[in-house]
Amino acid sequence: MGKVATAEAMRFMVDCLKAVGTAARAAEQQAELLIQADRFGHPSHGLNRLEMYVNDIISGACKPNNEPKVLKESPSTAWIDANNVLGATASHYAMDVAINKAKQTGVAWVTVKGSNHNGMAGFWAQKAADKGLIGMAFTNTSPLLAPTRSKQSALGTNPISVVAPASQGESFYLDMATTAVAVGKIEMQRRKGEPLPAGWAQGPDGRETQDADLAFETGCLMPLGGGERTSGYKGFGLAAMVELFCGISAGANYGHHVRSWSHSGDGGPANLGHCFVAVDPECFAPGFGDRLAESIQHWRQLEPTDPDLPVLAPGDKEKKAAAEADVKGTVSYVKQQIESSAALAERLKVKPMEVEME
Amino acid sequence: MGKVATAEAMRFMVDCLKAVGTAARAAEQQAELLIQADRFGHPSHGLNRLEMYVNDIISGACKPNNEPKVLKESPSTAWIDANNVLGATASHYAMDVAINKAKQTGVAWVTVKGSNHNGMAGFWAQKAADKGLIGMAFTNTSPLLAPTRSKQSALGTNPISVVAPASQGESFYLDMATTAVAVGKIEMQRRKGEPLPAGWAQGPDGRETQDADLAFETGCLMPLGGGERTSGYKGFGLAAMVELFCGISAGANYGHHVRSWSHSGDGGPANLGHCFVAVDPECFAPGFGDRLAESIQHWRQLEPTDPDLPVLAPGDKEKKAAAEADVKGTVSYVKQQIESSAALAERLKVKPMEVEME
Repeated sequence: MGKVATAEAMRFMVDCLKAVGTAARAAEQQAELLIQADRFGHPSHGLNRLEMYVNDIISGACKPNNEPKVLKESPSTAWIDANNVLGATASHYAMDVAINKAKQTGVAWVTVKGSNHNGMAGFWAQKAADKGLIGMAFTNTSPLLAPTRSKQSALGTNPISVVAPASQGESFYLDMATTAVAVGKIEMQRRKGEPLPAGWAQGPDGRETQDADLAFETGCLMPLGGGERTSGYKGFGLAAMVELFCGISAGANYGHHVRSWSHSGDGGPANLGHCFVAVDPECFAPGFGDRLAESIQHWRQLEPTDPDLPVLAPGDKEKKAAAEADVKGTVSYVKQQIESSAALAERLKVKPMEVEME
Repeated sequence: MGKVATAEAMRFMVDCLKAVGTAARAAEQQAELLIQADRFGHPSHGLNRLEMYVNDIISGACKPNNEPKVLKESPSTAWIDANNVLGATASHYAMDVAINKAKQTGVAWVTVKGSNHNGMAGFWAQKAADKGLIGMAFTNTSPLLAPTRSKQSALGTNPISVVAPASQGESFYLDMATTAVAVGKIEMQRRKGEPLPAGWAQGPDGRETQDADLAFETGCLMPLGGGERTSGYKGFGLAAMVELFCGISAGANYGHHVRSWSHSGDGGPANLGHCFVAVDPECFAPGFGDRLAESIQHWRQLEPTDPDLPVLAPGDKEKKAAAEADVKGTVSYVKQQIESSAALAERLKVKPMEVEME
């Protein structure tokens, strides 16, 4: 592992994005999104993604200095063309529209087409929660999920995120892929040389596999719930629901029409679809924050099956990781990540990231 | 099994509800909700539930002839007090408010307190879809779900439903409990004397159990995803999200404060919370229905792992069951159900249901 000062990791990401022509503000917003994932202990959505964004900018597939625009709106909805900007630029723009409308009418529903990968969905839901609203974010992604009974993938890992502010400094934070696990977990088992648990992924014959290499090459993740007997069709249904909210509503690429996840800057824009929702809890019963805080605290205090493993409320793991990273002022990366970042620095003629190897 | 003409099952349910003082329209609406579940092949939410409603009316826990009212509203939201009416009355009222507001502003978000069990969530999402909208329905229910790592239950089976109209006579129909399975599936294994698959339910020690009797007595279902290793915390997170939308937002009973599912008409109102959402797809990209139909048809045509088990789109199973029931003009009930309905008829001095035993 290599340890990097959080500010230095940010500096490096901003420099790389600027080196390929991204204006300062767009580069900073994208870097803030990525560093948040690294702080939250979700490295698959952090620095790890930087090179993909850089490649898409170099190839012209992403146009970071374009401007998103509203194509159609009503008092509580907006349809936005991201105009192929970076995912962070598009998502800040769209969630700002949602927040403003929700403050007026109580709820806003915004869909976006023509966008790019917008990182950790929770970052966007949190943006609305920071304004006192219930925030929700959904996005489609490249096909990786095999619907129940199918040999082939047809949907992405299509995340659902809901974040809401509670009293006493608490908050509800849910950010989940609708596959059983994200592809990063398969990669981790592969690196460790360990087999996969049941219900994670399929081999090319459409049957569950415990072989991490085969699963990685096949690229057919099982939906949340695993096989049919354990209700995997519900995870498939949720992934399909996210696609309905995103690509299908926004008129972006959708489902099997989204480009492959192994794409590496070979042209064509991603044209991803997102959906952002903001709801003002003040429109309903007074005391929302108190009831939410009481629930969160109740869950944590439930008697655990294993006394060494206390019950966690949604988001507890992420908040703990972020707090630890912030105390240290550093984020940590695997050796492979440190090496590929050094190579990227050289390729882009950017000052390499200062790393303390552990 | 016993076969009953669909109209006769309806007649019986309406008569029972009227026998305990329910006005005709409320009785008919509740019976329509129940018969839909029987037609859809979800008998746990059909006639099976009738006696619970009847008992709650007799005990005074439910007041079927009250009227729901809007407590607070904005252009796109409403907070409703169901005033303790039957779930069907409350839900028709609330979804009508949502539909009208969504037609005006593009989206509506409505929460309800003071309600009773409102049956199959999909019935309510379908009501909005029938008006050309994307309909969503959520409700809290009695505690049965054990959060990941917990020995105790803390949330209900809290369903999520999303229904949307598509072109070519297609529609997207998702209606799912956020537990791995509904309690009815445990009952079915118990009746058959078969063990439970992994990931369904816990015993009193908090460990997974394959013992259907023990699982039924313990009443701790596992969330969608099963154990922690297979991401059961996502199912827990979804159940918690539903509670946030329902009881927590609406100021109804919530989570562990909701009365036990084994309650049998002993007084105190349920005070359940629901949430209804309607979104007008016309507010976004033209061609929504075409893209949705194309997706649904694509999923069905995916190459299946087992050639005898074609891939199903969300809702295909329910639509097939309903079509078959409608061709026959009958619904079927297990012997136990037939017997308890006969006893109920006698208790309420209502004409018994005409049954053809098979």
